[in-house]
Amino acid sequence: MVSKFPVIVGHEATGIVESIGEGVTTVKPGDKVIPLFLPQCRECNACCNPDGNLCIRSDITGRGVLADGTTRFTCKGKPVYHFMNTSTFTEYTVVDESSVAKIDDTAPPEKVCLIGCGFSTGYGAAVKTGKVKPGSTCVVFGLGGVGLSVIMGCKSAGASRIIGIDLNKDKFEKAMTVGATECISPKDSTKPISEVLSEMTGNNVGYTFEVIGRLDTMIDALASCHMNYGTSVVVGAPPSAKMLTYDPMLLFTGRTWKGCVFGGLKSRDDVPKLVTEFLAKKFDLDQLITHVLPFKQINEGFELLNSGQSIRTVLTF
Amino acid sequence: MVSKFPVIVGHEATGIVESIGEGVTTVKPGDKVIPLFLPQCRECNACCNPDGNLCIRSDITGRGVLADGTTRFTCKGKPVYHFMNTSTFTEYTVVDESSVAKIDDTAPPEKVCLIGCGFSTGYGAAVKTGKVKPGSTCVVFGLGGVGLSVIMGCKSAGASRIIGIDLNKDKFEKAMTVGATECISPKDSTKPISEVLSEMTGNNVGYTFEVIGRLDTMIDALASCHMNYGTSVVVGAPPSAKMLTYDPMLLFTGRTWKGCVFGGLKSRDDVPKLVTEFLAKKFDLDQLITHVLPFKQINEGFELLNSGQSIRTVLTF
Repeated sequence: MVSKFPVIVGHEATGIVESIGEGVTTVKPGDKVIPLFLPQCRECNACCNPDGNLCIRSDITGRGVLADGTTRFTCKGKPVYHFMNTSTFTEYTVVDESSVAKIDDTAPPEKVCLIGCGFSTGYGAAVKTGKVKPGSTCVVFGLGGVGLSVIMGCKSAGASRIIGIDLNKDKFEKAMTVGATECISPKDSTKPISEVLSEMTGNNVGYTFEVIGRLDTMIDALASCHMNYGTSVVVGAPPSAKMLTYDPMLLFTGRTWKGCVFGGLKSRDDVPKLVTEFLAKKFDLDQLITHVLPFKQINEGFELLNSGQSIRTVLTF
Repeated sequence: MVSKFPVIVGHEATGIVESIGEGVTTVKPGDKVIPLFLPQCRECNACCNPDGNLCIRSDITGRGVLADGTTRFTCKGKPVYHFMNTSTFTEYTVVDESSVAKIDDTAPPEKVCLIGCGFSTGYGAAVKTGKVKPGSTCVVFGLGGVGLSVIMGCKSAGASRIIGIDLNKDKFEKAMTVGATECISPKDSTKPISEVLSEMTGNNVGYTFEVIGRLDTMIDALASCHMNYGTSVVVGAPPSAKMLTYDPMLLFTGRTWKGCVFGGLKSRDDVPKLVTEFLAKKFDLDQLITHVLPFKQINEGFELLNSGQSIRTVLTF
């Protein structure tokens, strides 16, 4: 994501409303909330369409200001910019009403913060964007935190077979814990992965998810779902300014290829629902949280993430 | 489509069952039928999936024989091959039970024959593959017979705005007759067609259909539907052995890109239903039939088609 500097980064969090501005009606001081990097203004074309979620207020160009054009942070008298309408690596932040959702008061903040981005992006890709049907076979390319959340979504949607794919076999155990029924590495066969999967499943892969962000695996994922009724969802962000070249016959015979931001979910509508589902134990966020650190150890947290030791590190104040 | 030679070509027709083989239960002598170039065996993965239709018995490799491996045509003692399970340019043909659908006895054969391919391919792309929603805005790239059928499908699905696109403005009048609300030529603007359409519609194109079979218009059609909730359907067959290069960000932000064969319709289930809907005047095939000729003038019919004078020429015995 692009951003203006200096900036307060951070976008996945839980908070408590300290005060509200004039005209705010959907949250009040004391409410437990999740800030939303993807706003929901409920007025633009995307918000008004049942299948849309990329609200026109999303700060995809990195303006770094609130809807009224102002920044609410300063440092030594100079402006500091907002990040994706949220700026959560701080004790206090200011967000537009369209960028915050009230959640259940009993929700554990150090867990449901994941619903603000990573978990929902994967889970929604399966249940909302892919619309995985009960009894189907799903394949997930890439077993990081978002990939694991895709698996949880497939399981929740009633998939009968969920195949995890990664080059790093150390990731298989966790994938099995959250719902994968088997895991394979493309390195274990000289055949293209689409052929391996077709043979494994009797040519019946209903859904594939690319959760890596590589062009070659996006094509592999497309080719791996059934040529006629398969759906492939691009969850990983493509490398910027790179073109993708593929055989259009892969699509012509009937496949569906789609992308999504935030799992296709409408943020203000769906985030509170997911929190409630978490409290009802419909899915288990504990599996995704490997470390909890005090905020002052934030740099240690990034090291854990970059070195692959951590799926998610939660920072607490 | 590939084929073994010598062959009896032709695949879009209406007929009367003359006789049936052992074990045939779904048609009987005297039944009015439409032969199905896309079979429906009701047993394979594609037939068993609600979203599938590309039956495993489809002769996409041009085997030129029936399901039992035989050809039922000879000429001077030598075998003549079948074409796409149908071979309809002949007074008598032989088809598998999975490649024929009984239709309403009162249906006019010289009209409903179009339901065997061209009409259904376009109409189904809108109502079944695209799942056009009432009130939406649709754009159809290419206004030949199949493109006109897509327009009829969009209209039938309740689209409130249907924009036809063609370089040849002579095609606009017919497009308006069958349901387009306006037509434009990309030549009339120096801007990319996706920008022209976004401005025309207030950035609210729900569905686009590529009915030409060109890689550049496939990308234009994808870019022209809404970046977040738009669906683009590839109806025109891509040129063989050509790769398509595009910016994957077009997909990542939420678009859906899909292909279909025979409009995604299940042939034996849906062809009889479409015939019944035609009889109930839900759509008008007369608009697509520009010429009717006796079979012996078949070459004249192809000349009319190739010169662009005819949308569909129906041959009668």
